[in-house]
Order: sequence, then C-alpha cells, then structure tokens
Amino acid sequence: MITREAILELDRLDPLALQRDAFALPRDKVYLDGNSLGALPRAAAVRVQDTVQQQWGVDLISSWNRHGWIDLPQAVGEKIAPLVGAAPGQVICADSISVNLFKLLSVVSMLRPERPVVLSAADNFPTDLYMVQGLSQLLGEQKLRLVQVAEAEITDALNERVAAVLLSHVNFRTGRILPMAEITAATQTAGALSIWDLAHSAGAMPVELDACQVDFAVGCGYKYFNGGPGAPAWVYAAERHQDAVQQPLCGWMGHRDPFVFDPDYEAAAGMLQYLCGTPPVLSMAALDAALDLFADIDMQALRAKSLALGTLFLELLHKTELAAELRLLSPPESELRGSQLAFSHPQAYGLVQAWIERGVVADFREPDVLRVGFSPLYNSYGDIWQALEALREVMAQREHLDPRWQQRQKVT
Amino acid sequence: MITREAILELDRLDPLALQRDAFALPRDKVYLDGNSLGALPRAAAVRVQDTVQQQWGVDLISSWNRHGWIDLPQAVGEKIAPLVGAAPGQVICADSISVNLFKLLSVVSMLRPERPVVLSAADNFPTDLYMVQGLSQLLGEQKLRLVQVAEAEITDALNERVAAVLLSHVNFRTGRILPMAEITAATQTAGALSIWDLAHSAGAMPVELDACQVDFAVGCGYKYFNGGPGAPAWVYAAERHQDAVQQPLCGWMGHRDPFVFDPDYEAAAGMLQYLCGTPPVLSMAALDAALDLFADIDMQALRAKSLALGTLFLELLHKTELAAELRLLSPPESELRGSQLAFSHPQAYGLVQAWIERGVVADFREPDVLRVGFSPLYNSYGDIWQALEALREVMAQREHLDPRWQQRQKVT
Repeated sequence: MITREAILELDRLDPLALQRDAFALPRDKVYLDGNSLGALPRAAAVRVQDTVQQQWGVDLISSWNRHGWIDLPQAVGEKIAPLVGAAPGQVICADSISVNLFKLLSVVSMLRPERPVVLSAADNFPTDLYMVQGLSQLLGEQKLRLVQVAEAEITDALNERVAAVLLSHVNFRTGRILPMAEITAATQTAGALSIWDLAHSAGAMPVELDACQVDFAVGCGYKYFNGGPGAPAWVYAAERHQDAVQQPLCGWMGHRDPFVFDPDYEAAAGMLQYLCGTPPVLSMAALDAALDLFADIDMQALRAKSLALGTLFLELLHKTELAAELRLLSPPESELRGSQLAFSHPQAYGLVQAWIERGVVADFREPDVLRVGFSPLYNSYGDIWQALEALREVMAQREHLDPRWQQRQKVT
Repeated sequence: MITREAILELDRLDPLALQRDAFALPRDKVYLDGNSLGALPRAAAVRVQDTVQQQWGVDLISSWNRHGWIDLPQAVGEKIAPLVGAAPGQVICADSISVNLFKLLSVVSMLRPERPVVLSAADNFPTDLYMVQGLSQLLGEQKLRLVQVAEAEITDALNERVAAVLLSHVNFRTGRILPMAEITAATQTAGALSIWDLAHSAGAMPVELDACQVDFAVGCGYKYFNGGPGAPAWVYAAERHQDAVQQPLCGWMGHRDPFVFDPDYEAAAGMLQYLCGTPPVLSMAALDAALDLFADIDMQALRAKSLALGTLFLELLHKTELAAELRLLSPPESELRGSQLAFSHPQAYGLVQAWIERGVVADFREPDVLRVGFSPLYNSYGDIWQALEALREVMAQREHLDPRWQQRQKVT
C-alpha cells in the first residue's frame, strides 16, 4: 500500500527536489504538461526583464556587442550540446524545428543526390512530415519524396533509394523511445543519413548524439528546456558534415562576415552557416537563462526520477478502478518510454478539461489521447499523488462527461 | 539663422511630440538609430512582463487560448496591414525577412515556372540577394537565378525571362526611395511579379501596397515598428495570389487544422499558409504591443516630420564646416529619401564611435558610410540640434581619429 506519507518521504529524499524552487510555478496547480510548454524558470523572468529594460531600453543598438546578442545563437547552442551528447561546435540555436528541418532535408538531398526517399514514421509529429512534403513539392517527387511506414518497420524499409531517415527520438503521442544507436547504424549501413527530432527527449533524458554517430538532429527550446512559449529551436550537424554543402536558407546571419554586406553569399564555417535571419533576441535570451538550470544536473539522475514519476503514476492508477477505463498507449516497459504517459479514453478531451478544473494540467491529443508529462526538475512525487486523487474525483463525479466539453478550444 | 530657441519652438508645435513619452528613452542619449533598432515602447515592456509572469508563469499552456497566443501572427499582421496600405487578410507575422523571402521566391518560381530570373538591385540589402542565391543553388540555375543591376536600371532590365523583381523600397544605405507604383507596373507589364522589402520604409512613411498593386512584400518588426531586437518579421501576399500555390516551408502552424495532427499537409486558406513553425511568443508579444502606438498616427504627419527632421539636419550641417568633409550619399531631394541620411567619410567608423561617446547614436555601414535615422515618434528637433553640436565637437577635437577606432567591434 502506497501512502501519502510514503510519497512525501520520496520527495524529501529526492536529490532534484530543490530544483523546483528555481521555477515560478503556481501553488494551486499540478503541472504535468512540461512536455508541451515547460514552466517558467525564475532566472528566465529576470533575464527577460533585464534584456528589455536595460539592454533594449537603455543600451539599445550597442547591446548587439555589449550584451552579446550577436553570439546568442552559438552560446545557447553550446549550452544545449552537452545535454544531447554533442561535442562543442555542433549545435546552434535558430528558427523553429520546422525551418531547421527544411535546412537539413535540403542538405541530405544534396549529400545523397541520387536517392529520392526520405523515410519517416507514419505517426511522426506532423510538422516533420509536412516539411518533407513541402521540399518534395518544390524539388519534384523524382528528386525527393516522403515514404511513411510504421515505427517498427523503419529498418526493414531501408534500401538504396533512401537518402535519409527522419524520426522523432520519442513519439509525441505514445512517448515510445526509438533505439537511436541501432536505427542510426542501420541507416548508415544502407548508405543513408539520419535526422533525429529530439523535441520530446532533449532535456528529459540523456541523449548521445555523438556516441550514436547521428548525422543531424533538431529540437525545440520550449518543452523540457523551459525556454518559454515558442522559444527558438536548435539544430545539430555532426562535424563531418558541416562544411560539405551549403544549406539553402542562407540569410545574412550565416554569412562568414555579415557586416561587410557582401552581395555574394559566402557561408560561415561550421554551425554558423545554419543561421538565417536576425534572431528573436527576447525569446532567445529567455531560453539562454533557462538552460543554466541544467548546468549542474546529472542527466542520469534526471532520467531516474522521470521514470520513477511515471512508474508511480501507473502504480497509483492501477490501485483504482480508473485503470480499466484508461488504455495505456505508451510502452508498459519504463525503459522504452520518454518522460510522458499516454492513454486513450473515449472522453479524453473531457477528462483533460475536468482535470484542469481540479488544478491538474495535462493535455489532450487527437483523436482520443490523454497525455501526462513529467518534468523531473519541477514535478514532485506529491504532484503525482495529487493528480491521481483529482482524477479519481473527476471520474467519480463524471465531470468528464460535462456537456461543456462538446465545444473544443482552438488549441487542444 | 536657425537658433536653438527656434528649434525648441518647433518641438512645442510638433503634433507628434507627445508620442515620445510612450518610449523609455535614456535621457542622456540622442538616438538616431531607430532605422536599425527601434527604441523601447513602455507598453512593450509592460506587455512582455505580463506575458512572462502571468501568461507563461501562471496560466502556462492555457495561454495559447486564454491569451490568444495562437492568434498573435494574424493579430499582429492586421495591425501592420493599414500601415502599409493593405486591406485586411493580406499580412501575417512570422519568422524573419530572410525566411519569408524564401517562401515568396519559391512561390514566384511556381507562379512563373518558365521564367528563371529574379531581378534585383546590386546594392539591395544582402540577405535579399542571398536568399535568391540559396534557392537558386537548391533548384538549379536553369530554374532560378539572380540577376543584379543598378537600382536605376531595373525597368530597363525587364524581359520575358524575369519571374520576379525583388527590391527594397528604401535602400538600406542611401535611403533612396524607389518608385513602387512605377516599377511594379513595369514589372507586371513585362509579365513578372513584384516583391518589395519594406524593412526601411514601413512605419516611417505611408506605403500603399494595395494601391500600387504590389504582388508580395516583406518587412521587419524591429526598426520603425519598435518591436524589439530581432522581432518577428511579416509577409504580405495580395489576395489574388494567396491560394494559387502552396509555399514550401509548410510547417504545422500553416495547416488548415494544426491540432488534428493530420500526417498530410493541407494548407490553411489565405495568409495562414505562410506560417511555418511555432512562433516566438515573447518576441511577438512585444511587437504586438509596440504596434499599438501607431493606432492613431496619421502617416502623412509622420512623414512630414520625418522629412522636416532630415531637412533640419542638412541645414544645420551646411551652416558648419563639416559639410565639406561629409559627402551626402542620399538623394538631395527630400521626397526621394526615406527616413534616414547617409554620408560617406574616410573615417566614418571613427566618427560614429566618437559621436556615440558624446551621446549621439547613429551607425556605420561598410565601407565608409555614416547613417543617421529619424524616428518621428520619438525623435525631436532638439535631438537634431544636439546631434550637430556633438558632431561639431567630435570633428573639432579630431576625436574620430582616435586610434581606438582601428579595432572594430563584431557588429558595426
């Protein structure tokens, strides 16, 4: 029998528990949606305030030099690099995941000109698939086209027409982890290149891009990195590929000498060529400050807590009658899961809304998915206890069947 | 003889003078660099603070609906539209100018598949030229290539191979205005499409995109719109072109129903298809608040003051011995200039640095250009007086020759 006291003891013993104070979390909420938007680090609020009032307001244009705005994309990239197992000089912060994927897809198309296929999983996050479709429409299907197969059939689908394999490390719905080392090796054995989307893994578990010999990767700043809504994304290119070809979104920030105003583009060396236009400094500054919270974090300890939170959730769930109603979509084996759990339920949307009214924030994903995310830097074991108590109440009172939930909000 | 008293009287009579209080300008500076980075509107600081503390920190993920984050790109676009002479539904806020140009260049290439040339001016802002070069490299020169001619020779260079003419409305160095209506008409008569970059005109003068029957345009948020460092950019597509073809940077935010998570891209109708990835909300919120300052501004009055500031600058300059040293690169006729003046000087870099030390902020552009920008919402006639007094001191004391200016900063 797991008691509330036993759970509070887990929190007392948790080596990451002190991290929670670094976040400005509302006291009346249990926030289990850090896999969608990470909570506000207090340091990010301070940094944005300073960036607006002092840097923009007082130091104005001189801040590009004085406060290092011009170096932010690299500085942020170098803070992310160790968190995804990348040696320095291989990660830079820029644009969105979608835009960065377009750069990488163009690059793999140039590196593998005779191979027209980008292989991906049918339930990959849609924007990843869309970006392949967009480039395909631009270049023509004979040059580049998307082939989607089930996640489990990726390596079987490899052949000599495949230029690249584009996969999410952790599935956005189910939370299933794909075996990065194994798929990357199989991809390269087949002569193709790997592109990994780390949106749902970076910052939530150890990632080993260099050790897995990954070719390219992207990730976002606003989920487990807590960089703020729509925080800029990042891109990784293994050093061996960086200067091989020039990515086509070659804006002035990627020029080797932007302030010479040369009418001819000449790419900067290394990751700088992945920059395009002027970066959104306020948003990037927030991410830069948020990343400092990871400076002293042991990612193995973070992963251990993430799994413990998920396991506790399932254990508490199985001690109730709710378990029968919620069908687990995530792998039952914890080591195969990222930092989230997904369940299907016919009234999943209503469940999420009613749960929110009881102070527990998770999210809904079409068509019938309830998603629960765990952010080990700020979620406690007590949060899980409270979440289950609230869920029990919701279902006992049939609050999830409230007719109000027939009407969906714009963002679900 | 223009006296200081006469100038202060101009400020007392200035109908826009009260706008200055809406900005958090440092008292010890004359800021003549709003053409590079607009000053901080007090309302933007308040808005960013609220977006961070309340929306991100407390309301968290619900803010996408509750605080309209999801609608920000359209809302900001609709605030910009009347300022550039566009009827509603034709402007959306997204990405950077560079990324938006890539979308538009791809679109014109699809709309004019038999015409391979994008015609531009050799001294257009480099990123505009680079984006053509990048797409050209991706598609091949037989499909798309850049042809650069002198600004004055654009219409003569039109022929049946030209798909699009890409020009800056106001030249970033000289400030020369190109005749938008005339060039657009000639472009269309030749069967080509027009793309205008309004970085240096939008927010500084009336612009008439619809009346000039412009096809496409882009602009930034961080110059005369005062949206903050690296504020998101915007894109205009005339209604007649919006649904003709699909732009290739087709991320999930441009899908007709992003939260259905359809694996196949289907473009939203109208300008929404110009969205790509998740937008940087903090930066976009600052721009949204900054644009409210234009709600009641008469753009003709703004233009009148802009020209008056420039004319006063030249008049005061010509009453000194400095005029002989500084060569005006801008058109001498005020109606041919945007809201800036450019001069060449062998020690332009040193002049700018020494001027800054005396509290006057202008900027340097390679190779030898001193640029002075006028933002009629916050610059006063008194600013111009002070700027000239300081410049006189700089040159009298030969401060611009200080050996410190041999060493240039990273951003010039």
